[in-house]
Amino acid sequence: MIKAVFFDLDDTIADTSRLAEMARKNAIENMIRHGMPADFDTAYNELLELIKEYGSNFDRHFDYLLRRLDLHYNPKWVAAGVIAYHNTKFAYLREVRHVRKTLLKLKEMGILLGIITDGNPIKQWEKILRLELDPYFDEVLISDFVGVKKPHPKIFRKALGKFDVKADEAVMVGDRLYSDIYGAKRVGMHTVWFRYGKYANSEIEYEKYADFTIEDLKELPGIIEVLNGEGKEDSDKKVHTD
Amino acid sequence: MIKAVFFDLDDTIADTSRLAEMARKNAIENMIRHGMPADFDTAYNELLELIKEYGSNFDRHFDYLLRRLDLHYNPKWVAAGVIAYHNTKFAYLREVRHVRKTLLKLKEMGILLGIITDGNPIKQWEKILRLELDPYFDEVLISDFVGVKKPHPKIFRKALGKFDVKADEAVMVGDRLYSDIYGAKRVGMHTVWFRYGKYANSEIEYEKYADFTIEDLKELPGIIEVLNGEGKEDSDKKVHTD
Repeated sequence: MIKAVFFDLDDTIADTSRLAEMARKNAIENMIRHGMPADFDTAYNELLELIKEYGSNFDRHFDYLLRRLDLHYNPKWVAAGVIAYHNTKFAYLREVRHVRKTLLKLKEMGILLGIITDGNPIKQWEKILRLELDPYFDEVLISDFVGVKKPHPKIFRKALGKFDVKADEAVMVGDRLYSDIYGAKRVGMHTVWFRYGKYANSEIEYEKYADFTIEDLKELPGIIEVLNGEGKEDSDKKVHTD
Repeated sequence: MIKAVFFDLDDTIADTSRLAEMARKNAIENMIRHGMPADFDTAYNELLELIKEYGSNFDRHFDYLLRRLDLHYNPKWVAAGVIAYHNTKFAYLREVRHVRKTLLKLKEMGILLGIITDGNPIKQWEKILRLELDPYFDEVLISDFVGVKKPHPKIFRKALGKFDVKADEAVMVGDRLYSDIYGAKRVGMHTVWFRYGKYANSEIEYEKYADFTIEDLKELPGIIEVLNGEGKEDSDKKVHTD
């Protein structure tokens, strides 16, 4: 009997790949518009490299970008980048299609709902609160706050403990095969790979850990029914078999 | 002959006292709305004390607020504070009355325009850019970037050097008697005290350094005319005489 469903946040609940790309591009455009002597492609590619090297939560991207472009420091350009980045981020922040409908349906089925995510706790909460999705979730576990990152078993076990449910009473839904699917499967949870966003074709070697693969969140309630033995045999769910 | 006019930024160009107050109050309200167990007055007063102690550019106000209230750390509450703070700040950010009209008039008179301000360079530029006031100014000097704070003579001398004008060819306009008026007068600039905002009755011991006192920026072009000997004798300017 499934009692709990856990979701990853980025590109499972919140549509963030597009947001980051648009925000970064607009930041570079605004820096150039305010006088930064660089061409767009060079600056954008340097920014992407920098983010790859320092991580997306590094808070001095635009300072370091100027250094990488051999430009003197100019707070006006940095401010132009920061403003455009934030304006764009908030404009593009939206939930993944069918999130709210699916969460409501699961709630009606009496399922406990949680989030298990990596990332900066304040930034992750900011997305949840701006989307006003917090009332749907009974628990939010953010790895940087817990002290371990997915796919470490500890964060999944901690999540199960919060709801006092066994691993086989819980489902993990996420877009990352390694951190979400392999991680949850290792502790014995049911797994649903949400094949979506920029990782739709990544880490395919971990696909064998996905019990189900979906491309639309609204397929989830049906999967819970299948797991509970209530599903129809002729279900059109893409059940992974191996 | 007056060739240049320099302005302070906060509460001279950008109306920021009200902005900070509204943003801080809304931050506390949103933290409480998201479950922070504190009453508004206690939390708001602790926040004000904290800002007084650590400065307004300290970037961990909300973390420290939780500590001061003896609450455990909760990134959700911090995020709720940050979101409300930023939304409110941008909603209330506006220019001081008659700024744009006055700047245009001074431009028409052939005057060079500059800003001399203290504070975090990126945050100060953010205000200028969000208000789209940057095209009006030929130079922006931010003390944290120059390495000295007002009223240090160096920042005023540096400003004069940027425009290649002598001190008595320049006017400083600001709301702070100590940092703006006393500071500029010490290097020999003409001074206009903009009696406005929360410092309208502060540091009165430095009022003797103000050549003129105004309560509306639109009085400025007339003052320049007076200084250039073009002004009418029966001007209603509040000329400070001592």
